[in-house]
Amino acid sequence: MHSPTVQKLIDLFSKFPTVGPRTAGRFVFYLMHKPKEEIEELITSISNLKKNIKICPLCLNPYEDETGLCSICSDSRRDKSLLCVISNEMDLMAIEKTKKYQGLYFVLGGTVSRLKKADIEKLKIKELEKRIKNDPEIKEVILALNSTAEGEATILYLERLLKPLNKKITRLGRGLPLGGELEYADEDTLSSAFESRR
Amino acid sequence: MHSPTVQKLIDLFSKFPTVGPRTAGRFVFYLMHKPKEEIEELITSISNLKKNIKICPLCLNPYEDETGLCSICSDSRRDKSLLCVISNEMDLMAIEKTKKYQGLYFVLGGTVSRLKKADIEKLKIKELEKRIKNDPEIKEVILALNSTAEGEATILYLERLLKPLNKKITRLGRGLPLGGELEYADEDTLSSAFESRR
Amino acid sequence: MHSPTVQKLIDLFSKFPTVGPRTAGRFVFYLMHKPKEEIEELITSISNLKKNIKICPLCLNPYEDETGLCSICSDSRRDKSLLCVISNEMDLMAIEKTKKYQGLYFVLGGTVSRLKKADIEKLKIKELEKRIKNDPEIKEVILALNSTAEGEATILYLERLLKPLNKKITRLGRGLPLGGELEYADEDTLSSAFESRR
Amino acid sequence: MHSPTVQKLIDLFSKFPTVGPRTAGRFVFYLMHKPKEEIEELITSISNLKKNIKICPLCLNPYEDETGLCSICSDSRRDKSLLCVISNEMDLMAIEKTKKYQGLYFVLGGTVSRLKKADIEKLKIKELEKRIKNDPEIKEVILALNSTAEGEATILYLERLLKPLNKKITRLGRGLPLGGELEYADEDTLSSAFESRR
Repeated sequence: MHSPTVQKLIDLFSKFPTVGPRTAGRFVFYLMHKPKEEIEELITSISNLKKNIKICPLCLNPYEDETGLCSICSDSRRDKSLLCVISNEMDLMAIEKTKKYQGLYFVLGGTVSRLKKADIEKLKIKELEKRIKNDPEIKEVILALNSTAEGEATILYLERLLKPLNKKITRLGRGLPLGGELEYADEDTLSSAFESRR
Repeated sequence: MHSPTVQKLIDLFSKFPTVGPRTAGRFVFYLMHKPKEEIEELITSISNLKKNIKICPLCLNPYEDETGLCSICSDSRRDKSLLCVISNEMDLMAIEKTKKYQGLYFVLGGTVSRLKKADIEKLKIKELEKRIKNDPEIKEVILALNSTAEGEATILYLERLLKPLNKKITRLGRGLPLGGELEYADEDTLSSAFESRR
Repeated sequence: MHSPTVQKLIDLFSKFPTVGPRTAGRFVFYLMHKPKEEIEELITSISNLKKNIKICPLCLNPYEDETGLCSICSDSRRDKSLLCVISNEMDLMAIEKTKKYQGLYFVLGGTVSRLKKADIEKLKIKELEKRIKNDPEIKEVILALNSTAEGEATILYLERLLKPLNKKITRLGRGLPLGGELEYADEDTLSSAFESRR
Repeated sequence: MHSPTVQKLIDLFSKFPTVGPRTAGRFVFYLMHKPKEEIEELITSISNLKKNIKICPLCLNPYEDETGLCSICSDSRRDKSLLCVISNEMDLMAIEKTKKYQGLYFVLGGTVSRLKKADIEKLKIKELEKRIKNDPEIKEVILALNSTAEGEATILYLERLLKPLNKKITRLGRGLPLGGELEYADEDTLSSAFESRR
């Protein structure tokens, strides 16, 4: 029912995370009503992404400047004995916002639900092993993945894999989140909250 | 905290309908991991939008082909005595999907909550008046706007404005939607459902 | 884990509509902390229900006073040519609140999803037939049931059943509810809203 | 609009936790359609509550048997060096379900948002102080209250109040709950999850 140009763009936007065909349609009609200059600004910004952004060879996080390393890996004040493994850049942002963690990061590129070869190969697991092996300064590897089934499966896999490297391997503490109520907490969360009481 | 290129694109995506900064961030990281060809395909599709899409002079709906009118306005089988005024292209799509309405459309370009001059001038109201005046074939103008406060305010405004044109002016019937339960229906909806019983 | 007295009461409250075991537990602990007089007030009120409430022989709605009929059926100002069939007393309340309907009611006692004999016999269908046959004043029977699958199935069944009685049989109009948006309306609702435009 | 008997019972049910007038109405109509024996069973169960249930003098938890203490306080296998302070019986149930905690309990009777005298006096704070002072076996007092603003305020108040008693005072660990995602965690929760990593 849509014209080919509109349909093509709806199809592309529908692949964006959290976007379905209806929202994709709203994006297209939104762009249709924008003046030419705003469309060109968007196009330039998208193409700049590929042009300006590099991937930090240490943590695999995208960065922009000319130093050869991202701003965190090149920051001499960061604690180089801590390496925090995260699924993606959004999680890195969330942790940085707390201003509590002062160590380094490694972007794994996802989590896996099934430990099949094809799934695991999508993650930067070899790069992670190499990163840890090559850096004797690292003392603790924090597996900061989601407490979901996928995150847990990936943590278990990494714990086993990284064991021979003889580093301290930790995972985030579980407990009641801010605003959490005992009555509605699941048994695992409540057990962990008791264990990590202080 | 983001690099300038990333932040710029987050800002632009944040203006898209229904998108906040967090989702905009996910869009940017999604694009960052796409191969060059897919990014170019997206850029081409966005720029085609401005290049290929024209606005139909009769209904103000965007269209693509070479006929000078959109596919609905140029379809001789459509009932030219009915003009359905809608807020935007998404509502037109929703109505076309029902396959029940066979008349023509007019895209108003929004609804207004306050009847202030500045707000009203954003709508294509003069164009609507002209469209109706110029076409003696039109017998009924259906104000198919949302049943929200904004939609209702706009309907009231248009009813008053279009009255001198001596056409039948109608609005959509109110009632229980599919799946609706009497017990949870508001009094207005229930009253309308009784009035429009059949 | 609960003591027998507590568990017994949790089991009974769990059968209340919308109440699960957790909410039932909260009810029991709530009562446990109430003073003796409040508990007695509750017990008296519950037992008064069976003592004081009668079922109106005409509409099957519960009522309390001494007239032999409920306050609606005995009200000479109500329009006796209209009989509104509803599922339960809560729907009757919802309709009365609109203050638009001035006819009489009949409480069917539920709706059925499957038209099996056992299900249908739970409804007061024979009583409804008798009520309509015995009252030549009734001109229109309004089937005011939910727009859900169950409600629709029951309406279809009643339409067929009541047809030989030669009364006007109507159902509530469907359309956009108050606050409804075209873009999110299903096709049936939108089609009905167009048909019942006015 | 309801008859006095119905309205009275709606009013009483509306005071139940989580119940509004609409749900209270459904409860009343539910009871109205129950046979006499079921109503009597409910009435007997409610009155048994006051008759059979006693309050344990040690933990203030309700119990039923003849021992003079509740089944937890009288259980010689429980760890008498741990006293877990909870808001209400539902929280006790939630903790018992985890089967991880083997100590004793104390039911505080609520939490307070404002530390005003009138609010605090509703809680069993004097009883708690006395309970701890009288039992030299207690080594640790766990303040297992909700992570809500109210719970936190009450924890802070109790920490200060119980300090002179020279017991270890702890609170539940905060962190990601089961199923929690880093990206959506608040900063406090994420900081705690890092601190309690293991």
